[in-house]
Amino acid sequence: MYGRLLLPELRVMLDEGDHAGIKEFCDALYPAVTAEILAELDSQEVWRVISCCEPEKQAEIFQFLPLPQQIEIVAVINRAPLSRLIEEMAPDDRVDLLSRMDEEHVEELLPLMAQAERSDIRKLLSYPEDSAGAIMTTEYASLPENITVAQALEKLRQQAPDSEIISYIYVVDEGRRLQGIVSLRDLILARPARPLSELINRDVISVRVDDDQEYVAQQLARFDFVAIPVVDNQNQLVGIVTHDDAIDIMQEEATEDTYRLAAVEPLEDSYLSTSLMTVIRKRIGWLIFLLVPSFLAAKVLEHYEGVSDKFEWLVLFIPLILASGGNAGSQSATLIIRAMALESNIQRDELNALLRKEFKLGLLLGGFLSVISFFISWAFTAELIQASVVGLSVFLVVLMGISAGGTLPMGFRRLGMDPALMSNPFITALVDILGLIIYFQVAMYIVG
Amino acid sequence: MYGRLLLPELRVMLDEGDHAGIKEFCDALYPAVTAEILAELDSQEVWRVISCCEPEKQAEIFQFLPLPQQIEIVAVINRAPLSRLIEEMAPDDRVDLLSRMDEEHVEELLPLMAQAERSDIRKLLSYPEDSAGAIMTTEYASLPENITVAQALEKLRQQAPDSEIISYIYVVDEGRRLQGIVSLRDLILARPARPLSELINRDVISVRVDDDQEYVAQQLARFDFVAIPVVDNQNQLVGIVTHDDAIDIMQEEATEDTYRLAAVEPLEDSYLSTSLMTVIRKRIGWLIFLLVPSFLAAKVLEHYEGVSDKFEWLVLFIPLILASGGNAGSQSATLIIRAMALESNIQRDELNALLRKEFKLGLLLGGFLSVISFFISWAFTAELIQASVVGLSVFLVVLMGISAGGTLPMGFRRLGMDPALMSNPFITALVDILGLIIYFQVAMYIVG
Repeated sequence: MYGRLLLPELRVMLDEGDHAGIKEFCDALYPAVTAEILAELDSQEVWRVISCCEPEKQAEIFQFLPLPQQIEIVAVINRAPLSRLIEEMAPDDRVDLLSRMDEEHVEELLPLMAQAERSDIRKLLSYPEDSAGAIMTTEYASLPENITVAQALEKLRQQAPDSEIISYIYVVDEGRRLQGIVSLRDLILARPARPLSELINRDVISVRVDDDQEYVAQQLARFDFVAIPVVDNQNQLVGIVTHDDAIDIMQEEATEDTYRLAAVEPLEDSYLSTSLMTVIRKRIGWLIFLLVPSFLAAKVLEHYEGVSDKFEWLVLFIPLILASGGNAGSQSATLIIRAMALESNIQRDELNALLRKEFKLGLLLGGFLSVISFFISWAFTAELIQASVVGLSVFLVVLMGISAGGTLPMGFRRLGMDPALMSNPFITALVDILGLIIYFQVAMYIVG
Repeated sequence: MYGRLLLPELRVMLDEGDHAGIKEFCDALYPAVTAEILAELDSQEVWRVISCCEPEKQAEIFQFLPLPQQIEIVAVINRAPLSRLIEEMAPDDRVDLLSRMDEEHVEELLPLMAQAERSDIRKLLSYPEDSAGAIMTTEYASLPENITVAQALEKLRQQAPDSEIISYIYVVDEGRRLQGIVSLRDLILARPARPLSELINRDVISVRVDDDQEYVAQQLARFDFVAIPVVDNQNQLVGIVTHDDAIDIMQEEATEDTYRLAAVEPLEDSYLSTSLMTVIRKRIGWLIFLLVPSFLAAKVLEHYEGVSDKFEWLVLFIPLILASGGNAGSQSATLIIRAMALESNIQRDELNALLRKEFKLGLLLGGFLSVISFFISWAFTAELIQASVVGLSVFLVVLMGISAGGTLPMGFRRLGMDPALMSNPFITALVDILGLIIYFQVAMYIVG
């Protein structure tokens, strides 16, 4: 990142109080790059840098800072400049910030802002977290229906500076109800005298203000849209969600699912900027919970103590039995949980086909691993009968592990819960207990 | 998905050979929705449906079908209509398809296409898979520098129908070298007589044609761009990568990382559409490889057979020891691998800070779990000394598991390898072996 190379230069200007130089520095770089450099400075320094810029530039840079850093910085800015900064921010970014600040602090700031901004903020703050309303921006371009192309372009020129996306323009009636959509491309291509109504695509795909953000991102991705309109119960246009938000949401959801697979509760911020105590809180619950099946496994082993006393070699292959079932089960659970996350409209018959496939896989993979384990353990113990116990157990345990890994996330889904709540360590723990029972039963059957 | 409700209607029209009805049906729906309905039909039927539409519409619908289905369908279409369909497809989508088809089949089709399309295809096919060149489209809008705003808009009107994105227009010199970028928004806002050169932003962020697709997607996301220009060695503009591709790439990369964490090799298509034999190939390698550490664990247990014979209760807590270390280690590895995937420009000092944090976490989480395990095993065995062995072992094993889970992915990264190659089952297997050694050494120390 070339940004870091510029940090010393910025520091010199800060030390010398060279405001003009700092302003020039920030104006020359992309806001995203400036923000990456500022991530290296403390809150006071960041504010001393961005306060040298025009308010609009200030907000542009500030928006690219990670949220935890934004929260630290607002604590060191006086009320007046802070309210101006927040006024300049994009509606969706500023609501993200305000919803993480102290309520008192927010109430102090609001009276300093313009009436329009204030009511916009209050409205966006009122939507539930992770809903379309919470992530949308209110800066979109809209047009009435009964005008010509030339008039539309004229109106658009007035709106463009305040709109995040102008590739699509939304057509609304007097009640702001969404009537259709016009692409800027069509508008530019059309004769100026043509009525706008002839260009309108009335089959608009929109989302509801209370739709879940994951659904919104999926719709954007499904139709390859740059932005998707958000409407309320009365079909009134209230905002748009843009492509960059969709990328952020998808990354966030993929991260959450990955964490959950490893039995970590989702974090609000990046792992790097999350405090030690928060990380402990997000990890300890599952770790404690997962002790329970381990003690159940101890109970199982206690139950079979007679067998393992008589055939001491059985103990040697306990790690093998536990690992085979757990690994195969985790593979299946991961594949199925990810498939369900990616294809939200997966059908019941497809799930059933998937389960049949997992079962066949269990037979085949179990068979392969069983044969290999048979030969290795034969070489290991030089006892055919011992190798047979290991081989047969591996077959059954892998089959059972894959069946459990495949069915448990689907079971969660049928119960209306997030399949990703079913973590791999939890599946592994269940498979451990069943695996031990299978192993000792097989041993009793063959050698007992 | 409302699409599925329309399937019976479509089937009736197919049975009746109602071509006009089918055409109207397809024209009325979004191509993405039509494609979802067609996913339910066989290849012959799909082609009978889309061949009722105009060639442009055919391609729009066809592009939204999953790649495996596209490949099936091209096998049933005659050469002439197929080459027309492919000509109409977006350059990036058609290259995805052609690179998956038989080379012979492709060579049969190419002569039927226009010269310009043919050389465009050959060029895009020549870029390595997963590079910017392989995912870019060549349909972008470009302008020369020395014209007025009015002339620019006029030229744009000619290019617009063929450009995927016109929010940004790229300014090139006579040698097609990228000089700068103009936003359509600025163009619309500007006075018609103004020289275009005054609107050009010359600090363009671009990617190179051989850059990795993951890097390209990260750059798009980093700057919130709708599209990013792709240049060759001579800084000549050769294409653009658009926001919808960035979403697909990020989903693909997140899926690969998730699979790898669970020791599954990445699949080319969705899990649902991957054949049984391919899935086995992607899963069996790791499962076989992971048998090795299990037999090493058997060796360790054999080594300590004297101890476990004397203190039979030690066997009961083997699953607990294995699970504690493995679960804590998987959590750490997952958090760190995901952090490295999300923040590509993570610095060495940040990684070191992360490692120190993991070590502290190891001490704290190990401490908590140790105390809890101590009390549960005390209740379980009613022997203080046995509970002490379990408690102390859990502490050390969790600390060791977290240290291994934290350092191994970073070690891979320092070696220049993908940290996600370090799967959780592999880390768990290593932790298993070390965990058993710790457990028996602690036991020998306390009770021996």
